[in-house]
Amino acid sequence: MKRLKEIPYKIYLDEKEIPNAWYNLRSAMINKPAPLLNPGTLKPMTAEELAPVFCDELIAQELDNDTEYFPIPEEVLNFYKMYRPSPLVRAYFLEKALGTPAHIYYKFEGNNTSGSHKLNSAIAQAYYAKKQGLKGVTTETGAGQWGTALSMACAYFDLDCKVFMVKVSYEQKPHRREVMRTYGASVTPSPSESTNIGRKILAEFPGTTGSLGCAISEAVEVAVSTPGYRYVLGSVLNQVLLHQSVIGLETQAALDKIGVKPDIVIGCAGGGSNLGGLISPFMRDKIKGKLDCRIVAVEPMSCPSFTRGIYAYDFCDTGKVCPLAKMYTLGSGFIPAPNHAGGLRYHGMSSVLSQLYDDGLMEAVSVPQTEVFKAAELFARTEGTLPAPESSHAIKVAIDEALKCRETGEAKNIVFGLTGTGYFDMVAYEKFHDGLMSDYRPSDEELAKSFATLPKV
Amino acid sequence: MKRLKEIPYKIYLDEKEIPNAWYNLRSAMINKPAPLLNPGTLKPMTAEELAPVFCDELIAQELDNDTEYFPIPEEVLNFYKMYRPSPLVRAYFLEKALGTPAHIYYKFEGNNTSGSHKLNSAIAQAYYAKKQGLKGVTTETGAGQWGTALSMACAYFDLDCKVFMVKVSYEQKPHRREVMRTYGASVTPSPSESTNIGRKILAEFPGTTGSLGCAISEAVEVAVSTPGYRYVLGSVLNQVLLHQSVIGLETQAALDKIGVKPDIVIGCAGGGSNLGGLISPFMRDKIKGKLDCRIVAVEPMSCPSFTRGIYAYDFCDTGKVCPLAKMYTLGSGFIPAPNHAGGLRYHGMSSVLSQLYDDGLMEAVSVPQTEVFKAAELFARTEGTLPAPESSHAIKVAIDEALKCRETGEAKNIVFGLTGTGYFDMVAYEKFHDGLMSDYRPSDEELAKSFATLPKV
Repeated sequence: MKRLKEIPYKIYLDEKEIPNAWYNLRSAMINKPAPLLNPGTLKPMTAEELAPVFCDELIAQELDNDTEYFPIPEEVLNFYKMYRPSPLVRAYFLEKALGTPAHIYYKFEGNNTSGSHKLNSAIAQAYYAKKQGLKGVTTETGAGQWGTALSMACAYFDLDCKVFMVKVSYEQKPHRREVMRTYGASVTPSPSESTNIGRKILAEFPGTTGSLGCAISEAVEVAVSTPGYRYVLGSVLNQVLLHQSVIGLETQAALDKIGVKPDIVIGCAGGGSNLGGLISPFMRDKIKGKLDCRIVAVEPMSCPSFTRGIYAYDFCDTGKVCPLAKMYTLGSGFIPAPNHAGGLRYHGMSSVLSQLYDDGLMEAVSVPQTEVFKAAELFARTEGTLPAPESSHAIKVAIDEALKCRETGEAKNIVFGLTGTGYFDMVAYEKFHDGLMSDYRPSDEELAKSFATLPKV
Repeated sequence: MKRLKEIPYKIYLDEKEIPNAWYNLRSAMINKPAPLLNPGTLKPMTAEELAPVFCDELIAQELDNDTEYFPIPEEVLNFYKMYRPSPLVRAYFLEKALGTPAHIYYKFEGNNTSGSHKLNSAIAQAYYAKKQGLKGVTTETGAGQWGTALSMACAYFDLDCKVFMVKVSYEQKPHRREVMRTYGASVTPSPSESTNIGRKILAEFPGTTGSLGCAISEAVEVAVSTPGYRYVLGSVLNQVLLHQSVIGLETQAALDKIGVKPDIVIGCAGGGSNLGGLISPFMRDKIKGKLDCRIVAVEPMSCPSFTRGIYAYDFCDTGKVCPLAKMYTLGSGFIPAPNHAGGLRYHGMSSVLSQLYDDGLMEAVSVPQTEVFKAAELFARTEGTLPAPESSHAIKVAIDEALKCRETGEAKNIVFGLTGTGYFDMVAYEKFHDGLMSDYRPSDEELAKSFATLPKV
């Protein structure tokens, strides 16, 4: 490959170079991800069984392990033009601060009002809901990025949007809530008195501040019990990784433009939406023997599904109303430490990524949160952008890899995903500045207890 | 001019097309802006008199009405590459929602962590401070955008940064404060006990929540009394408008690329930094008879310096420690209504813009804030980006002009400046959603009272 003499700070694709199809990484996988199971029959979920919960076309995408490319509908492409192509940035300033010979690149997905990559899938899911003639959609949100993204997408297609927001976030992040209201969404703190499962959980645990698993259960209940509504989810699912492939496709196209092949691709991993999207074309090339490249998932030490979890079928939600998914999991009873800042708090991991990790095609590393915020602050001061805590997990490991290059003198190409901005996470930054942030690592006993909540499949 | 057949959503310049010189609009003005006066002698301030307050090279820029272009130093250009060129966006979605034949374009300056255009001048001022061998700079901030921008710039050049933040904002916007801390700045609520003027004001008005004019006085006092420090300001001054010309130069270059000439250029106006920068090349062409174009300043009804102010010499700060400036002003004793959201609260207006307005080269219009937030919400829902309240003043008038075009059937080219994002203004949005926002218009009696605070020059 011919290498450009001078690589600009930001490598922008042309509007016409936005990918016109999503890439389905499952089509390249030798071992396909395990199917979702019906928790009653323990048999693979059929499209018919999923229809009351999800939109029809999204179910087709969810179950399809073979089709390589799904064309991006024109109306979704038009919306993408609002904020895509996103820039691939050469981190010249960070490299200089580290004194590393490594070349660091990051794909920045935070340049839109939702503040993260979540919008890529939100607009796709809203489109299919509208196309099916639905009135609205329901969902849950934790830190609030997904809820914001979905609100924006629903405003665009004039769909009703009901968001169940984990109560602790609802109360601590009123500004996030207000952004969703600006886009016309209704936001309910979860658990709420408005659903059966919410009332049950409130009766059982009065004063609970909620969890993502509980908010999922409430959103699903409202979707299946309200005519003209379906449930949508911002991570974990195959369909979401499919939509997020736009991140990886653009990243690869931009790298091709400057004649660069990555040696390491790094992404943070909560449910897997960003990581799965970012790595998709690189993983394909790696599977096909066309690319020699390390792929690294970064997760918080406080919620280590990959590095300390079990690869097994598990419930996706606390209320156990969803299908079972085979994944690296800490058990659906696992509750992340309350001191943990930001997202990446989900107990499980995408089935696609779980299978790839189990096949030895990816690495995973877990990092303590004070180290993550140190990396975030260095990044903010050198590269300008104030990163989200989630994204900062990837920054931390990119910095570690770049420092290794300083030792070895290697000019490796390190690519990472900067999924979003941290404007709504300043409470966490404040804790960090005031020295009040702690590093929590769940004990083996604690994990053993939550593994006991795994279903017997 | 040849017009492109298909204009993209976002018109990006190449990195190499970032202007390499700032344009000094004063060089084209027939009637030059009135000079700053020494409040003691009432004679024009000399470079020597300004030296204890401002950096030497910035003073040279401040006093120079003749030089057309000032080269942008290489280190500033490098920093610009972090977030520039900023996109010029064709507002296709907004046009569609309005059903207007007008073509609407906006220059979006919010795609950086400071969230606004203020960074363009902050990095220039920090550079000259560093070059002069200073230890640090002092400044004031109201809504917090300027303080954030200066913190980022000082972090880049390893300069100390002392920010006096209007007390009411300090308390209501802890997140803004935390962003500044992330970039290493020290932030003090104003009025404070740490300065003579602060103590005096606190003694006279115990319980005051502060004002921009007071914070300026404190910042200047600390700068002149601390060895190795100077004061920097984010708006009003000639030098700031000079640096902000990068906005207008890029806008014109992008419009040239697609073969478009603006019929109307619209900007919000507080102290004038954004408006003065945005319009600079267009105003030059208008003065020289090369462009037939309306130029419109938009200000809040609650702080109407252009539309109801007096063109006279006035104090720039409450403590009356700064030089006198000739400007459209409401009197330095004017205090904007506390219910007013966001910036644009300064009692005066840039001398450059004041002169241009007095010469009939610009129009001005004032708008009530509920109308501004209605426009902001429509913009957010259609164009995606959640705008700052300041920027939304320009959106409101751009929409009004586009609706006039719907009546007349004219396909006018409307260009406005979208100076920033509203992530830190969600309290104001919440008031708007809850119907708690009111429209305040100062009475004639109130203005007469504050006009009485004007100095006799």
